[in-house]
Amino acid sequence: MPPVKSIIYNRIPESDPALIARAAAFGIADLHEAMGGVAGRMCLMSPKMRPISAGQRVCGPAVTAYNYPGDNLMIHAALHLAQAGQVLVFTNGGSSQGALWGDVACGFAKKKGVAGVVADGAVRDTDALRELEFPVWATAISVEHPEKRGPGAVNVPVIVDGVLVEPGDIIAADADGVLVIPRKLLAHAVEGAEARAAFETKVRARIAAGELPLDILGMRQVIENLGIEQRDTTWEADRN
Amino acid sequence: MPPVKSIIYNRIPESDPALIARAAAFGIADLHEAMGGVAGRMCLMSPKMRPISAGQRVCGPAVTAYNYPGDNLMIHAALHLAQAGQVLVFTNGGSSQGALWGDVACGFAKKKGVAGVVADGAVRDTDALRELEFPVWATAISVEHPEKRGPGAVNVPVIVDGVLVEPGDIIAADADGVLVIPRKLLAHAVEGAEARAAFETKVRARIAAGELPLDILGMRQVIENLGIEQRDTTWEADRN
Amino acid sequence: MPPVKSIIYNRIPESDPALIARAAAFGIADLHEAMGGVAGRMCLMSPKMRPISAGQRVCGPAVTAYNYPGDNLMIHAALHLAQAGQVLVFTNGGSSQGALWGDVACGFAKKKGVAGVVADGAVRDTDALRELEFPVWATAISVEHPEKRGPGAVNVPVIVDGVLVEPGDIIAADADGVLVIPRKLLAHAVEGAEARAAFETKVRARIAAGELPLDILGMRQVIENLGIEQRDTTWEADRN
Amino acid sequence: MPPVKSIIYNRIPESDPALIARAAAFGIADLHEAMGGVAGRMCLMSPKMRPISAGQRVCGPAVTAYNYPGDNLMIHAALHLAQAGQVLVFTNGGSSQGALWGDVACGFAKKKGVAGVVADGAVRDTDALRELEFPVWATAISVEHPEKRGPGAVNVPVIVDGVLVEPGDIIAADADGVLVIPRKLLAHAVEGAEARAAFETKVRARIAAGELPLDILGMRQVIENLGIEQRDTTWEADRN
Amino acid sequence: MPPVKSIIYNRIPESDPALIARAAAFGIADLHEAMGGVAGRMCLMSPKMRPISAGQRVCGPAVTAYNYPGDNLMIHAALHLAQAGQVLVFTNGGSSQGALWGDVACGFAKKKGVAGVVADGAVRDTDALRELEFPVWATAISVEHPEKRGPGAVNVPVIVDGVLVEPGDIIAADADGVLVIPRKLLAHAVEGAEARAAFETKVRARIAAGELPLDILGMRQVIENLGIEQRDTTWEADRN
Amino acid sequence: MPPVKSIIYNRIPESDPALIARAAAFGIADLHEAMGGVAGRMCLMSPKMRPISAGQRVCGPAVTAYNYPGDNLMIHAALHLAQAGQVLVFTNGGSSQGALWGDVACGFAKKKGVAGVVADGAVRDTDALRELEFPVWATAISVEHPEKRGPGAVNVPVIVDGVLVEPGDIIAADADGVLVIPRKLLAHAVEGAEARAAFETKVRARIAAGELPLDILGMRQVIENLGIEQRDTTWEADRN
Repeated sequence: MPPVKSIIYNRIPESDPALIARAAAFGIADLHEAMGGVAGRMCLMSPKMRPISAGQRVCGPAVTAYNYPGDNLMIHAALHLAQAGQVLVFTNGGSSQGALWGDVACGFAKKKGVAGVVADGAVRDTDALRELEFPVWATAISVEHPEKRGPGAVNVPVIVDGVLVEPGDIIAADADGVLVIPRKLLAHAVEGAEARAAFETKVRARIAAGELPLDILGMRQVIENLGIEQRDTTWEADRN
Repeated sequence: MPPVKSIIYNRIPESDPALIARAAAFGIADLHEAMGGVAGRMCLMSPKMRPISAGQRVCGPAVTAYNYPGDNLMIHAALHLAQAGQVLVFTNGGSSQGALWGDVACGFAKKKGVAGVVADGAVRDTDALRELEFPVWATAISVEHPEKRGPGAVNVPVIVDGVLVEPGDIIAADADGVLVIPRKLLAHAVEGAEARAAFETKVRARIAAGELPLDILGMRQVIENLGIEQRDTTWEADRN
Repeated sequence: MPPVKSIIYNRIPESDPALIARAAAFGIADLHEAMGGVAGRMCLMSPKMRPISAGQRVCGPAVTAYNYPGDNLMIHAALHLAQAGQVLVFTNGGSSQGALWGDVACGFAKKKGVAGVVADGAVRDTDALRELEFPVWATAISVEHPEKRGPGAVNVPVIVDGVLVEPGDIIAADADGVLVIPRKLLAHAVEGAEARAAFETKVRARIAAGELPLDILGMRQVIENLGIEQRDTTWEADRN
Repeated sequence: MPPVKSIIYNRIPESDPALIARAAAFGIADLHEAMGGVAGRMCLMSPKMRPISAGQRVCGPAVTAYNYPGDNLMIHAALHLAQAGQVLVFTNGGSSQGALWGDVACGFAKKKGVAGVVADGAVRDTDALRELEFPVWATAISVEHPEKRGPGAVNVPVIVDGVLVEPGDIIAADADGVLVIPRKLLAHAVEGAEARAAFETKVRARIAAGELPLDILGMRQVIENLGIEQRDTTWEADRN
Repeated sequence: MPPVKSIIYNRIPESDPALIARAAAFGIADLHEAMGGVAGRMCLMSPKMRPISAGQRVCGPAVTAYNYPGDNLMIHAALHLAQAGQVLVFTNGGSSQGALWGDVACGFAKKKGVAGVVADGAVRDTDALRELEFPVWATAISVEHPEKRGPGAVNVPVIVDGVLVEPGDIIAADADGVLVIPRKLLAHAVEGAEARAAFETKVRARIAAGELPLDILGMRQVIENLGIEQRDTTWEADRN
Repeated sequence: MPPVKSIIYNRIPESDPALIARAAAFGIADLHEAMGGVAGRMCLMSPKMRPISAGQRVCGPAVTAYNYPGDNLMIHAALHLAQAGQVLVFTNGGSSQGALWGDVACGFAKKKGVAGVVADGAVRDTDALRELEFPVWATAISVEHPEKRGPGAVNVPVIVDGVLVEPGDIIAADADGVLVIPRKLLAHAVEGAEARAAFETKVRARIAAGELPLDILGMRQVIENLGIEQRDTTWEADRN
């Protein structure tokens, strides 16, 4: 349930740091797969959410801010509350008007040890963000002036690029995009990713040893079961 | 928290039918305004969500279905469970592949007294839907064949066109789009809409009596407070 | 293989008029389903392709024209060649610059008995098109002046809204969009649509008699086979 | 040059009402063509700008309002200044956040005799707008609450859906979209449209009399000059 | 007022080179902010306008070219007229058909000392553009053949990615996008950017010294004035 | 004609390796131009198709796979059949649901000497793809889990980003995008590109020697023939 009035929650639910550290060992592809087909799909942001810098990765609990159109007052309130290792997650409801993040805020975030930023909206000063080596993902780049009039909300559940982010959810992000791991699914995701990584290591070894992926992954059987016809010709043979 | 596995909840939380009936008296503009700036914005679907027929309105509790890409198995499970007056809310994760709704299902829904459908995805047989006078909102029209292989989930929280819909939330929809009223905000929204309607009736009467909206709505004062300059010329006078 | 140079083929391959007449009895949903999963999907235009008028339907062989950006010279050459019952299919490569169709051409087309127009691009004079009751589908409405400088090609295979249209392919279109039926698949599509219509009539009768779609369509079994859990509670019972 | 500060010009440059009346006799296709290839293209809004009601047309001088993101304070200031026959032209910079126009304002506009509204952004209460038979064109429909905090500007040049609109420019709009006729081009556009209409009447008469458009419009010659090859076969003859 | 006929103006209005040099010291974020809320927003291109190479910046007066759909004849006329330090600004009316800029033209531009290119449309030979270290911003990358048939216009006002560019306006561009500074606002923008930079230096120093941005930027007061509630709990405490 | 049922053709039509090697010497701009205006345009993918890594180029015959929505079973069947030097071309019908390509498959493809991948849909593990230095072009980046249930088709003609790709067609791709060279146009394209390269070398030499592009490319004459007026003033002289 969204809050009726503008509100700031000063705290977020906590997760086991050891679990977060284990999750941080994986890319979002592994964690997404480990979450399972329903949860994994529901928690994956879209291709519109892109990293600003190459080679950045992040994994940490979400501090959220909901802003009014063209405004970013609440991102400052969120930044004020954020602690080392946390990931700031911002939205202004889906347009790119009013940059949500820039270099002054970023310098302060880095000083505090904030882990990164995910913005459904615009960010600016992208050259400076890259120099600061501060991880940022966003759906747009624009310097458009953000108002600072509010209101909005901090540390409430928000929808970011089509995904529900509850404060304290674990945000994992890399070159492939952004994944939200609900707090209660974290152990499940970590264990699944570890199992999957072990499996993939074996798959790679078997491929290196000469086995075929079609056999290793059981797809030859799927194709057979579907009764898909194979012809030893080119399609042109059937054209006329 | 999304479900890890495919699951069907047979029931949805209930709301007071009298409150729903009072909400049904209003368009979504009034209900949205009444919910307040933070909640109202968070709960409003985007301009991509359009009615299929002219003149349709709906207001009822949500039965939700989450479908895999290109699949609609779960909408059938949801339709099976839905009761008179409820609104079916579907998503297949955001693409238009695999029509989520068509005339056979619609005929059965009408027979059951289902109130309407909101689909983040494609619907088909639109001429038949219009003939049936069954209210449908969707983000796309396409006949593309939906697989019926599943899995998915029924009556779990879903994100539909960027808005969180929890089962049992009240769906209000008209020519202007679709609004989700969280169950616990329903009384607040209804009371606000009634107050707002009374206020607007007065505003219209005052306008009819010759008063100016700028005065009635207090905007003359806002403009003055902002110190906005007014010039009794055209802009061309300042061009050179 | 696209033509290297600008070329006009004066003729198109023919289909059996009786088969076309049988196809014309169906909406595109039925014909699409009847074509089968691979062919049906490959031959269905996207939700961007919309009818200009309500209630129009068309079914006839395609006369195609490929135009240069912002130009429509070749649609006039195609219109010149088109015969009664044929459907004009136009593209200018995917932008909406340069209206491909308007009322003067439309009046002449109607006089010739041309069956309709499908344009991947813009059309104009839409009020007049509606008054003429001439069926038109398009991806955009714009009056932007089309150049008449060419070159281009007539009656060559073209890609229209992501679908291959070979001259003489059957174009079926209704309120749900546009489907291309390759000439050699026409009999297959017609027979399948007839079988499907008979099946759907039975399904409707069984639903009217009180049977449940979940049983009639075998979906209850699919859900069981997937091992999807069903709980007699609301999702809120599992939230905490 | 855009204004540095928020400003309201109380007046707009005037045009000859007789010329406007002559322009109002034409659809935008004719007026666009009459303006010529460079001016006509520069002054035509895109296919995103759509009428809210069927069958509406408008032609009148523009009163413009530039609004901040999600805000519509300035449309009220513009409405306050607008006079009978004028067309209100609004933008909030390109997003659909914050409805720019709704039924209360529309009722007052109708009372004043305002001719219509063109909004690069969202409008709401669309059923009411249709009942009022007040002509509105917009790029989106959404009830999202507009702030009324300003600032902005009234009767300054604005960019609306990619087209420059200077206050006093003539706005012509119909089912095909919206065209801006710069004040100094009005006579040129009107005379051209009248000549074009006369020419098209002749063309239609010649077509009715059996002449071919390819000859009447000189396109047969263009095709010949391009040296486009014509073959009396189908393209399939050249496939292999 | 757009030109009725195709026209080339050989000259552009001039600005003080010293002022341009001072502007060139700043990124577009600073210059945009300095222009003020109305002018800054009106003059900022959208997130669709992206740099082709990393690390490029440009600041210089605009030479403009308006091209017909799929055509780039006029960019050659503009390149012919352009002088050292000037920025070429191109549009073909908004589609990506017909590349507006490539390596041959770019080599000649570099030889002339042209400062950069901003294209609302497609550019090609992007690897070569990067090797030449010639700054280019564009809304698309495509090699599609541009016709060279014209007509069009050179050094007339054009709309580029939603922003009015008058010949001689100062184009500032960096990793964050493209800003247009109208000639008469240049001194205002430069002075503002210098003041803003001095202020930001102080802000950074105060942050480094331990002060909090919420205090330095006065946002704590804004939040208080809004009466936003703060709770020392997590949102979950209020969920039920 | 698309296949009615799921089918796999084990072979593709062959082209002369020497011709492919000659084509590989050119970027797609040259090859596109050489194909000619109609064929070149029809065979060029859109700006949505982007390279995943900087600096990659590819030229080889297409092995194609058509996948169901959200599924990639058929890409594995295609990979199984692909041979050294071939380019895998994938589509799942146009959405970004279900990643079509990732690092395990990519490692195997590299081992086999597959030349590259072109995907109308999503790819993942992009950091790994870059480390492997394996050339990939795609319309989206997403880790979304791909089903492996099929069906689909291998080595049939497919539409990829609006372009027809027949198995065995030559795929050329670089930083500017992706071009499809139909097998029977390969010699024509190669010869044209060689002639064009020789011409461009001469153009560059003449520019270096001081000649003007407007003269070398004959555009001065085009401008003159169009009767385009040139004025030795700025446009402002004509504003009033």
